[in-house]
Amino acid sequence: MEVRHADEDPGRGAAGRETYGLKVLERTLAAAGCDDEQANLRELRQWLFEGLIGLAREFDGMGIDASSPLEQRAARFILDLPGKRLRPLCALVASRIGEGWRSPVVRDVAVAAEMVHNATLLHDDVIDLGTERRGLPCARVVYGNAASVLGGDFLLVRAVRRIHRHGRPELVFGLLDVVEAMVDAEAEQLELRGRMVFDRERYLRIVQGKTASLFRWSLSGAAQAAGAPEAHVKALETVGACMGVAFQLVDDLLDVEGDAEALGKDLFADLEEGKMTWPFIIAAERAPSFVATLEGWMRDHRAGEAGRPDAVLALLVETEAAAATRAFAVQQSELALDALRTLPPSPARTILEVIVQAIVHRRQ
Amino acid sequence: MEVRHADEDPGRGAAGRETYGLKVLERTLAAAGCDDEQANLRELRQWLFEGLIGLAREFDGMGIDASSPLEQRAARFILDLPGKRLRPLCALVASRIGEGWRSPVVRDVAVAAEMVHNATLLHDDVIDLGTERRGLPCARVVYGNAASVLGGDFLLVRAVRRIHRHGRPELVFGLLDVVEAMVDAEAEQLELRGRMVFDRERYLRIVQGKTASLFRWSLSGAAQAAGAPEAHVKALETVGACMGVAFQLVDDLLDVEGDAEALGKDLFADLEEGKMTWPFIIAAERAPSFVATLEGWMRDHRAGEAGRPDAVLALLVETEAAAATRAFAVQQSELALDALRTLPPSPARTILEVIVQAIVHRRQ
Repeated sequence: MEVRHADEDPGRGAAGRETYGLKVLERTLAAAGCDDEQANLRELRQWLFEGLIGLAREFDGMGIDASSPLEQRAARFILDLPGKRLRPLCALVASRIGEGWRSPVVRDVAVAAEMVHNATLLHDDVIDLGTERRGLPCARVVYGNAASVLGGDFLLVRAVRRIHRHGRPELVFGLLDVVEAMVDAEAEQLELRGRMVFDRERYLRIVQGKTASLFRWSLSGAAQAAGAPEAHVKALETVGACMGVAFQLVDDLLDVEGDAEALGKDLFADLEEGKMTWPFIIAAERAPSFVATLEGWMRDHRAGEAGRPDAVLALLVETEAAAATRAFAVQQSELALDALRTLPPSPARTILEVIVQAIVHRRQ
Repeated sequence: MEVRHADEDPGRGAAGRETYGLKVLERTLAAAGCDDEQANLRELRQWLFEGLIGLAREFDGMGIDASSPLEQRAARFILDLPGKRLRPLCALVASRIGEGWRSPVVRDVAVAAEMVHNATLLHDDVIDLGTERRGLPCARVVYGNAASVLGGDFLLVRAVRRIHRHGRPELVFGLLDVVEAMVDAEAEQLELRGRMVFDRERYLRIVQGKTASLFRWSLSGAAQAAGAPEAHVKALETVGACMGVAFQLVDDLLDVEGDAEALGKDLFADLEEGKMTWPFIIAAERAPSFVATLEGWMRDHRAGEAGRPDAVLALLVETEAAAATRAFAVQQSELALDALRTLPPSPARTILEVIVQAIVHRRQ
């Protein structure tokens, strides 16, 4: 059946796919020397595992099959791609900061966060004319641009409905704010298309909107849903905002640390889409010749005459752009950890600390 | 300023633009021999005039200017195109069926209906790769596809927020149902692209979703917002559903009654987009050669060899497809009028009756 992949790849069944993020977390816990019994993590880890399996069941429960309208199949297709499920994972852990973590609204915050994330991916693919997503052909290639636009609309409506049905207006407003911030940021990035703008303030504004806002809401919305005290919800907003910025900085870093061949391709695409990255901002600040070098390479690339962007890479190395980016990501993660330390110690706090560290130290 | 047109065309100032739908209504009232004093319409007409001017103020109040994010400017661009404002007009009139028509939520139903309508237009333009909207270049031509996708998202979020802020969950669910029905129907139409499917049931399902659902909610949602009795809200749902189908049937009719040159162009575009029209369904049912004739003309058109679709038109005339379409539109309008007659007589009911008749007898 076209909307599921499980059959095509037995190594990637529903449970394996849904808990991939958790597996990464487990490895990170092990590497950090976290002892389950000592830190009382066993029960929470089991619950998170079940929560992520439950997420797959929620998507199954949408009743989308081969006879469903095209846009719903496109939506299901992207929901089923293997991913880290990082936002629902954050939501589930954060809900444990409140007493009401057993409430059904908590699961719906996790589900809605993943739906909104995927809705924006569907629309982004159409906007950027992307062809791959998580190593597989993206929905617009399989189902077409039109179905991707409508599939994104469908997921947005379903996400709002999920939250709205619980009669908790503050959660709906929070979610609507996030979507609007994401759309505004995407549009701001759009206006930078084809331009060489390297500006810290603009970068941070775009990342706050595009990436951090949904991390923020996944954490704070879930805690709010579970009835956590206002001060804890506020702290989790800070955690989410810093985590989101750190996440994007590491994305930027992994881009420039990849091999030069791959970098050349992605680099060109990113710049054409108006995506500034932090290493480039640093290099532009520190090396007066950087922008001209980059523009020269872009011109050659457009003319089909560019080789590897060696001169660009040399300036990135010379300006220590990667190290500066890593340092900034670490600084953001420390702000997140500071905010976490205002919460009382608990297994959930420990897991959130590990997630923050996993985000900064990830290799993919 | 790029987001307003008033300065470019002094004959189309804000007031003139906003009340265009009302002017059409006035002409229809006059033609129907409706006497203001006799039918107690003066106060209601004045209030509708103010309501539609108020709509423009609401759009101004969104604070979108040349420095706003790109997608907001695209949204404002389409909101400002001259249009009939038929959905807000319906909402405002229908609200007078309830006691609470002075409530701010009523105006927000009118605003949200127009926002959702324009959101779907923005996304439809990207889906159909349209180039004109209401005789002017469409937003995707002016602002690009990406800004149109994001502009539609922005309007959807703003529409939901408008309704959500009043703490009336049933209205939010109604609006979300409408958007989902519109998206499903658009996707169903998408799957018919490039295929010659002439099927009454599918046509009606698509029209119910794409067109009728928003008319239905504009009327019933506004009445519900104003606290009208449940039976009246239900009656207005029927009115809206039938009105929407009649509206689409007349659209179909105006298409085939246009001159052959224009028809050839639109016809091809519509069929390529999977848009069935009722006259074609009738012709396909009544003339065994119709589908083959149409397919032949489409093939020639694709090869750049088609002339005017004279053979297609001849079969439409021969099968009396236009007359059958008009008859079906009249039948739908009569169902709407029957439902209206279950409401107590009032100036609002009179105006709604006139709107139903104006929709069936309109020439544009």
